[in-house]
Amino acid sequence: MSTQSASSLPATARAESPFVGTDDVAWTAVGAGVRRQVLGHGPDLMLVRVEFERDAVGTVHHHPHRQVTYVAAGRFAVQVGDARRELGVGDSFFAVADVPHGVVALEPGTLIDVFTPAREEFLAAGA
Amino acid sequence: MSTQSASSLPATARAESPFVGTDDVAWTAVGAGVRRQVLGHGPDLMLVRVEFERDAVGTVHHHPHRQVTYVAAGRFAVQVGDARRELGVGDSFFAVADVPHGVVALEPGTLIDVFTPAREEFLAAGA
Repeated sequence: MSTQSASSLPATARAESPFVGTDDVAWTAVGAGVRRQVLGHGPDLMLVRVEFERDAVGTVHHHPHRQVTYVAAGRFAVQVGDARRELGVGDSFFAVADVPHGVVALEPGTLIDVFTPAREEFLAAGA
Repeated sequence: MSTQSASSLPATARAESPFVGTDDVAWTAVGAGVRRQVLGHGPDLMLVRVEFERDAVGTVHHHPHRQVTYVAAGRFAVQVGDARRELGVGDSFFAVADVPHGVVALEPGTLIDVFTPAREEFLAAGA
């Protein structure tokens, strides 16, 4: 039986809360004008908020994780495989495993990237 | 070999595009003051935009799918298992398999619900 108070619980215990507020976690710089924040996540599902300055680039890349992305703010030129489209608030795209995808922010904006399984490397990076 | 034109392609063919814009798909009434729109999705990942009028209720329910939710607009009183918290824009919650969860919209708002695996019944409902 533990006598540990709630305020001194280790991070692993706090992480058991179902809630992850934007003020609860740090931002990680990803590249020029891009930063991300890992919000709610479990082993097979992870939600990441990514903020872009105008003209910032999410370089084309690929990974085995399936990804769905929601445009929460701004406008983006998006490339998924050979397909290209400009997306605004309320729009989304889906990236199957290993398909190359990337974005350019046409104005300051925010993407909600969600992955299955989780991008474990984002946690290792301290995000 | 099909002579079908692009404009008459069945939904299954159109669904192969990686892009799902908010103007591309219908809204489905979920309950009083609540409607949803299924955006990007594949068999093991589905993103759903849910809009709430003030005081609208997402009734406490549970399902085996893991869920992560992002508050895109408004403020919500959220319950996940025995935990309760008020969430605003940028906040999130995670629901493990079969944990009861529900929300009350404290003002007009939008949640981004993401599931693994996909909620196939949402597609069957015509959303």
